Amino acid sequence: MTTRKVASKTSVKPPAKAPAKKTAPTPKATTRIALIGFGTVGSSVAKLLAELKLPGLELTHIFNRDVARKRALPTAKFVPKSVVWTDDVNVLLASDADVIVELVGGLTPAESWIKKALAAGKSVVTANKQLIAYRGPGLMKLAAANGVYLLHGAAVAGGVPVIPGILQGLGGDQVTRLSGIVNGTCNYILSRMETGADYLTVLADAQQLGYAEADPSADVDGYDARAKLCILARIAMHAELNPDDVPTQSISVIDAVDFAYAKELNCTIRQISSAQADGTTVHARVAPMLVPLSSPIAWSHGTQNMVVSSGRFGGDVVFSGHGAGGEPTAVAVVSDLLAVSQKCATVQLPIRKRTVTGDFLAPHYLRFIVDDKPGIVSAISGALSKVGANIDSILQRPGYPKHRLAFVVTTEPCLTSTIEQAVSSIAKMDCMLERPLCLQMLERND
Amino acid sequence: MTTRKVASKTSVKPPAKAPAKKTAPTPKATTRIALIGFGTVGSSVAKLLAELKLPGLELTHIFNRDVARKRALPTAKFVPKSVVWTDDVNVLLASDADVIVELVGGLTPAESWIKKALAAGKSVVTANKQLIAYRGPGLMKLAAANGVYLLHGAAVAGGVPVIPGILQGLGGDQVTRLSGIVNGTCNYILSRMETGADYLTVLADAQQLGYAEADPSADVDGYDARAKLCILARIAMHAELNPDDVPTQSISVIDAVDFAYAKELNCTIRQISSAQADGTTVHARVAPMLVPLSSPIAWSHGTQNMVVSSGRFGGDVVFSGHGAGGEPTAVAVVSDLLAVSQKCATVQLPIRKRTVTGDFLAPHYLRFIVDDKPGIVSAISGALSKVGANIDSILQRPGYPKHRLAFVVTTEPCLTSTIEQAVSSIAKMDCMLERPLCLQMLERND
Repeated sequence: MTTRKVASKTSVKPPAKAPAKKTAPTPKATTRIALIGFGTVGSSVAKLLAELKLPGLELTHIFNRDVARKRALPTAKFVPKSVVWTDDVNVLLASDADVIVELVGGLTPAESWIKKALAAGKSVVTANKQLIAYRGPGLMKLAAANGVYLLHGAAVAGGVPVIPGILQGLGGDQVTRLSGIVNGTCNYILSRMETGADYLTVLADAQQLGYAEADPSADVDGYDARAKLCILARIAMHAELNPDDVPTQSISVIDAVDFAYAKELNCTIRQISSAQADGTTVHARVAPMLVPLSSPIAWSHGTQNMVVSSGRFGGDVVFSGHGAGGEPTAVAVVSDLLAVSQKCATVQLPIRKRTVTGDFLAPHYLRFIVDDKPGIVSAISGALSKVGANIDSILQRPGYPKHRLAFVVTTEPCLTSTIEQAVSSIAKMDCMLERPLCLQMLERND
Repeated sequence: MTTRKVASKTSVKPPAKAPAKKTAPTPKATTRIALIGFGTVGSSVAKLLAELKLPGLELTHIFNRDVARKRALPTAKFVPKSVVWTDDVNVLLASDADVIVELVGGLTPAESWIKKALAAGKSVVTANKQLIAYRGPGLMKLAAANGVYLLHGAAVAGGVPVIPGILQGLGGDQVTRLSGIVNGTCNYILSRMETGADYLTVLADAQQLGYAEADPSADVDGYDARAKLCILARIAMHAELNPDDVPTQSISVIDAVDFAYAKELNCTIRQISSAQADGTTVHARVAPMLVPLSSPIAWSHGTQNMVVSSGRFGGDVVFSGHGAGGEPTAVAVVSDLLAVSQKCATVQLPIRKRTVTGDFLAPHYLRFIVDDKPGIVSAISGALSKVGANIDSILQRPGYPKHRLAFVVTTEPCLTSTIEQAVSSIAKMDCMLERPLCLQMLERND
């Protein structure tokens, strides 16, 4: 990083940036846009700006490493000749751009760049879910202090306007529950597994198709979805959660046998991000869960995203569509650029810190792989009964070998922590060939 | 109407109404709210304001006929003692309220009241779809000229934030198609008929439950949905349509036999509001249509609403939830009140007048009731072939009497006008006991 001077936080803002409030914006002076990152989303933003020719928006700067390679790509054809390309981010931060679009993701160095941009009196539009989940409130304060905007509609569910829809349309409700499929990679993997494919094959396909990273952990282990869930909880429930406090369970533990048993229970399996307000506590969890086939949540296939927001007064509201990909994400970015350009602030309500618990009162699915011998079911039901969990059903499909028998027990609603206590004791039984799998089961109205 | 003076359009606005722009609203001085109409929605707005205690919102006035009766209702318990009740609307218009909530519906007298409110420098929040469909652009201009807001998030799909979601989240896309279920009454009737009930019985139930008016025409004949479709086309496609130009077909023509045949085609029947951009023309229609059971549109049951917006870049986005009812609609109203209170303008893009055609290139479903005799199918196929329509299937379920035989022909995609031409000639055949029913069939990806 060079020490090139950028406009300081206390610099006087040019008058053009702070016009008197107008309710119905007549086309403003052009808003100058600088892109940080010219990858899949960045180049799609350039394409949309070129094709849509929206009034008042002008792409003026692009930052990327190895500019020469990026400028030679076919996607660069949408970039106006007048645009300044640079591999020095300070050129953008010191430029006359009105808004910086940050598309590099992650906390470092994105956070310091965004802080500098805000301090320099530039608005910021970002798709960076980790940054907004972990640092959102502080950055929002910085933006407000500098009289500029920080918008992040692309950070959750890409092209599906969940964030603007909730902010502008559900502020008049009290949202008590959120359930979502907000990671397209996991949804692709699990909906392919639903039709019989195995995890590792589908993961390899997803990597080939560009849906999954070489290191798929952020997606499959739930960290990506967890950041999005925390952003949703903030805007919908006005609850500030520490993302690190939200328990996650990897989808890599799901096996073909689980889809077979799920089907017998009229369910499928999806990575669900779930939050439920409960006084000063929020129950929150990201995990593969059994979802009734009759629930809207089961409608999402492939890389589709879906968020269900349940309100005390308005009931369930469902948003769904393409949650990822260059162009859908660029739709959210360009929509935010319009809002910045037309000085459209978003509704803000007081946000309160909330304690997170991973406990949900719910039915649970327990799948055991055992070396079969008499007395197993009795021992398992004893362990469950000891913690006060009632068995709802026992399922044993034919065709599994005795020495590696997969069978399932479902329980009536009980706390996740209670059932995990029983699972820990069951896991110690000699006959258990693997640690039992414990999944929460959504009910039809969840 | 009295001649009591209301603040004129040219009156100087008090400085508190036009503060310098602030990006991040700190709680503003209280926004004073006057309700026109204390019915189901109005009393729910009072309830939400009382229960949610949102910062900066204060209910100050209520207008209704027969105030004494309204004040005696149990729903009045949510109204603060300080509120001024009146049966003279001019009291509200001349008051110090900052925003008028119009909930009486219809063009007259709502239009003149809203104009007076805007001219008096008051913002307006309304759920009035007819008024916004027919007079929206003029009223928006009047609001802008007076430096105030006119918001109507409750006018389409009640508690489902379709309007704010599209305005703030899809401005960066080019929406090419809209398909929606936006009339809960029709959806209730048709989804009940799907399970075997007949039209008149279900309509009577709907009236009993308060879902349908004593005169159900606005709902079942499609005028309510048509107004909503025109509003959606305006905000999503930036296309201004004359609602009177949009063809409608009543759902009252649907019979139990149509659900039986729809089922054989793996479809159900719903009232669909559909618009498709095509250069300077918009194809638009409100009619009962066959919907594939595999399509998201078929998921909506009961009074649920659903809107699918298809964009060139973002693909399909689905919004669904409770489209009507006091509390869901009040959620939209109160969300709009927050936006007014926090000076949150909405993104506005240039809107262009568009010609409407009711023609869609689509497969069609033709149901005939005939006094059976040889040669009918041959005559029908001749009439279809004469206009260039190809038959896709002929279905005849067993069990109908020969002298009143119901059978169905489906066609490959052809224009609505073409197929209607054939239907007119077929209708003249002696054996036809009723005018043939012609319905558009949505395809899976519509």
